Amino acid sequence: MSSPGKAIILLSGGLDSTTVLAMALAQGYECLTLAVSYGQRHSVELQAAAALSQRMGAREHRQMHVDLAGIGGSALTDPQIDVPEAGGPGIPVTYVPARNTLMLSLALGWAEVAGARDIFIGVNAVDYSGYPDCRPEFIAAFAQLAALATRAGVEGGSLNIQTPLMQLSKAQIIRQGMSLGVDYSQTVSCYQADALGRACGRCDSCRLRSEGFAAAGVADPTRYA
Amino acid sequence: MSSPGKAIILLSGGLDSTTVLAMALAQGYECLTLAVSYGQRHSVELQAAAALSQRMGAREHRQMHVDLAGIGGSALTDPQIDVPEAGGPGIPVTYVPARNTLMLSLALGWAEVAGARDIFIGVNAVDYSGYPDCRPEFIAAFAQLAALATRAGVEGGSLNIQTPLMQLSKAQIIRQGMSLGVDYSQTVSCYQADALGRACGRCDSCRLRSEGFAAAGVADPTRYA
Repeated sequence: MSSPGKAIILLSGGLDSTTVLAMALAQGYECLTLAVSYGQRHSVELQAAAALSQRMGAREHRQMHVDLAGIGGSALTDPQIDVPEAGGPGIPVTYVPARNTLMLSLALGWAEVAGARDIFIGVNAVDYSGYPDCRPEFIAAFAQLAALATRAGVEGGSLNIQTPLMQLSKAQIIRQGMSLGVDYSQTVSCYQADALGRACGRCDSCRLRSEGFAAAGVADPTRYA
Repeated sequence: MSSPGKAIILLSGGLDSTTVLAMALAQGYECLTLAVSYGQRHSVELQAAAALSQRMGAREHRQMHVDLAGIGGSALTDPQIDVPEAGGPGIPVTYVPARNTLMLSLALGWAEVAGARDIFIGVNAVDYSGYPDCRPEFIAAFAQLAALATRAGVEGGSLNIQTPLMQLSKAQIIRQGMSLGVDYSQTVSCYQADALGRACGRCDSCRLRSEGFAAAGVADPTRYA
């Protein structure tokens, strides 16, 4: 079977995107991983992304920066806003305005230059935090935009936005990753992990993750502080 | 008449976006100007943007950075690629992959946090350089995305992408700006301006600009090297 070619994988170093990388590698894609620093409170997840990319066999890893902290408005980039310990109704304060739009745009630019026809992103519409830019209709709109925004879109060719986790529960994602040999102890999901990458165990992201391991019937390998 | 409210104005410091700022101010918008540094060869246009914003009466100016030079693939961000002196057929090498997608995404994030319902961008489909992300269909796709990507899009409300220059010739843009008192000697359009902001007079952007002044019957105030 011939290789499906190059793909850009948005890799945050968390559970979801690491599973996506494992899935793309298993399908034979030549994976170019992209971690985006956007003024996160901590950088352990960026270090985890670089380490996981190399260990799992991606061809290249890049880290790019966008200045979302300058915009503010999110508990994840603004130290003035506390990270809540339980999810409530509506869009939570951990929502980072335009984050997925920006990360997909950077992936789009790299895809165009590298000649990749696929972009993988680990968004999920089942066990997610209620962010508007994780919904299938958002991804469909971005795919439409990508087809118009690029050289490839004008000169022919196509660019696919792949979201293999979209309809999976957290437990299904974890089972998928385990079957592909993902070492989840090396992934960082916590919104406020400490400098060693240890999770708080209390934020919304920790809660979703730990419930996922329980539902999958797998011992939780997360390193807690 | 009540104010139409806050608007984000993408301001590069060039002729087009400066005219857009003048138009938005004339319509009574409270203007928040955004200059995006993306690894341009020179930074004089960023300095021009900050100075023009303040002088013309915008409420606030911000400069944000995205790492497009790390992606490469454009004569505007990669010193290995020469800036051509004449336009040819197809998409030119001065095209920066995903640039407008990224700049609009940053504007979208700021609009959401600042409570602005309008984003102005000086794209133009008449006298332009053949970039895919300057076309009306690209802007329409981004507006569609913006409606889905944001808190406002989920909770109600709207976000408009305004492109007042889209159907104007360069001469019409210049006449519009002159009637609003724009000082074009302070704008920088050249792809390879020198450290004093003086234009080369030879690149595609200089050519479009100088032909525009000629067609408008206005003396060209550009400072050439």
